[in-house]
Amino acid sequence: MAVVVAEIVAIGSELLRGPNVDINGTFLALRLAEIGIDVRFRTVVGDDRGEILDSLTHALSRATVVVTSGGLGPTEDDLTREVLATLFKRPLQTDLPTLDRIRERASRRGFSLTEGARRMAEIPRGAELLPNREGSAPGILIEEAGRLLVALPGVPSELKPMVTEALIPRLAHLVPLGFEIRSRTLKACGPVESEVDRILGDLWESKNPVLGILVSPGEVHIRLTARGRPGEVGKLLHEVETEVRRRLGIDCFGADDERLEDVVGRLLSSRRGTVALAESCTGGLVGHRLTNVAGSSTYFEQGMVMYSNRAKVDILKVPEMLLERHGAVSAEVALAMARGARQMTGSDYGLAVTGIAGPAGGTPAKPVGLTYIGLADPRGEISREYRFLGGREENKWRASQMALDLLRRRLLEAGG
Amino acid sequence: MAVVVAEIVAIGSELLRGPNVDINGTFLALRLAEIGIDVRFRTVVGDDRGEILDSLTHALSRATVVVTSGGLGPTEDDLTREVLATLFKRPLQTDLPTLDRIRERASRRGFSLTEGARRMAEIPRGAELLPNREGSAPGILIEEAGRLLVALPGVPSELKPMVTEALIPRLAHLVPLGFEIRSRTLKACGPVESEVDRILGDLWESKNPVLGILVSPGEVHIRLTARGRPGEVGKLLHEVETEVRRRLGIDCFGADDERLEDVVGRLLSSRRGTVALAESCTGGLVGHRLTNVAGSSTYFEQGMVMYSNRAKVDILKVPEMLLERHGAVSAEVALAMARGARQMTGSDYGLAVTGIAGPAGGTPAKPVGLTYIGLADPRGEISREYRFLGGREENKWRASQMALDLLRRRLLEAGG
Repeated sequence: MAVVVAEIVAIGSELLRGPNVDINGTFLALRLAEIGIDVRFRTVVGDDRGEILDSLTHALSRATVVVTSGGLGPTEDDLTREVLATLFKRPLQTDLPTLDRIRERASRRGFSLTEGARRMAEIPRGAELLPNREGSAPGILIEEAGRLLVALPGVPSELKPMVTEALIPRLAHLVPLGFEIRSRTLKACGPVESEVDRILGDLWESKNPVLGILVSPGEVHIRLTARGRPGEVGKLLHEVETEVRRRLGIDCFGADDERLEDVVGRLLSSRRGTVALAESCTGGLVGHRLTNVAGSSTYFEQGMVMYSNRAKVDILKVPEMLLERHGAVSAEVALAMARGARQMTGSDYGLAVTGIAGPAGGTPAKPVGLTYIGLADPRGEISREYRFLGGREENKWRASQMALDLLRRRLLEAGG
Repeated sequence: MAVVVAEIVAIGSELLRGPNVDINGTFLALRLAEIGIDVRFRTVVGDDRGEILDSLTHALSRATVVVTSGGLGPTEDDLTREVLATLFKRPLQTDLPTLDRIRERASRRGFSLTEGARRMAEIPRGAELLPNREGSAPGILIEEAGRLLVALPGVPSELKPMVTEALIPRLAHLVPLGFEIRSRTLKACGPVESEVDRILGDLWESKNPVLGILVSPGEVHIRLTARGRPGEVGKLLHEVETEVRRRLGIDCFGADDERLEDVVGRLLSSRRGTVALAESCTGGLVGHRLTNVAGSSTYFEQGMVMYSNRAKVDILKVPEMLLERHGAVSAEVALAMARGARQMTGSDYGLAVTGIAGPAGGTPAKPVGLTYIGLADPRGEISREYRFLGGREENKWRASQMALDLLRRRLLEAGG
């Protein structure tokens, strides 16, 4: 099965020492894979002529398609155009339609044309241009000796439409008709990585799709990647997906871009349920996640972030006795908070989180990471206890994850 | 000034097509820079013998130090050891102390020694080992012909202590005594990238430190990177930092790892102020950010997420007339929410956000992205209007950013 090998070269010194990461490269790799172009190498190189030249020369020695991002802007450390001119021995020439466009964009914003902006219209002789809908610098495509080099801007909002609208259609002819690489990610909440590993057992032997496992806090992702002809690929993925889902059961909550909050929102919508929140240690994170979903106002009316005991008593009507007897971080108080949130708002579900996020506030009896989730609904009340071992933000995240997952399971049990 | 050039090679097919990113590489680049080793190239390559070999061969042709991560584990797609054996023509030999350690770790967990685990003790002849405090596979170091190759495990929790405790001390001799590279990032909230660009003006000419500019939603970061001898580097950075801060004035809110919420928290603590929140479109995000700061319970008692009008009226005592006359997304309602939050909790500051995050809910008069921030404190009340142009989550983020920044400015005006 013929595969077109590609390399992505991200250009920019700021990418070498972080904290920025090459998000363009991840986007490109996915889009190219969809048309059967396999990204086998990714390189990051700083803003240095010699080093960019070396990276591109080597990339062209091992890949048929080389895509760069960055270094097309107006400043002096934007070197990609110059390096392409050297690499392909094609002098830079001003492209007049591009220059006009840059001048027009500048004047619309009330700027005059700077020397730097003018440089963005200098293109290696004979190169093709990819239009930039969102910015000034066009993409540059050079095809030579059976190899293809594409230079894209580094700004993600410019790169993305350029890839989707211009690059992908331009590259389609390179690929054996209909050949494709497709991935599917199944997401589980509940079992840890080693349990998922064991549950999948013999499926690890599969060569097409191949399986991979990725861990993010509170979730395990199983990634299936299949290669082949259209239809074939879908069928291969579907068979293994069905088997993975069967084995994971209710622990598998979604696929691909679906987040836990999307799934919870869909379940609440379809069952016409509403939810109110009483958050302590998560500080608003559960509400933030629920409201990341468009349309969440139909099922989420109100959340309360009750960081102090006083607030828990005054607003949520948590009995003071419970706080005294069991402490704010206890199953009893989690349930009283859930009950209070539900009653005070008239929502179907009251969901509460209380815990010790850390780093301070722990005791031998109630260590940092101890967290209780409480849920009250028309059928009754349940609570869960967790002991998380991460730092403050990870503990908050895991608490929000377990709260949403408890609601998800409860909604599934309630049926359609 | 002699610089030791390094390349980082991340090995693992899962890194090529995301969503995982090479966080090990960013950590390594920073740690190496601190001892004056300059990471000039970063490469990602999949689990393929030929492609790993090609990448390492090329890396050794352009860098003195090559550090790989990944591919040292027990499974069949862990190929780094094999490739090193081929590259350096040194056969793999079982290291008995390592094998004993692996066997002991396995038995402590109740496992017997698998064939895969046994392979982790196979080391290219004559290689040095770097102990793995957190896992089974040791790091491998090979020095040959003035070049140094280091293979580290891919699991971040294993790689990090290995780098800090074993690799950095081992590499220190490579570096001209005391030579270092250091970066400092200054963060601004308020001006957009092109304004910061203009404000910095002639500072862009600086060669040491060099300046870079990075944009993240609602913030602009200015990165200074200096090279030289100790003391010298600190002085160079300090001079330019002082000038950048002078030019940005109050728009510069912090440096390096400091987040806006850290700065707001520090100001609240030092002024013994307390804050209560009333969030609508941000759904809890402002509370989440405030409570990401350890110790935030001393100044943050309570937040309310009032997604519906009913909640705004019932709990926050927003007059119904205001909602009818101006709509929920208005300066008047933002102020009434801030006032309500402040009064109901007795906090010094009441901070409120109301807006249309999108994608639905916009009208010609009140488009998606329209957002009001309200702030009430003992000195009075202020509101701000914004029109954000992003998607739902970006709009939420920017709204939380502007709310925290308004509070920061107000706290600074209030003085110590």
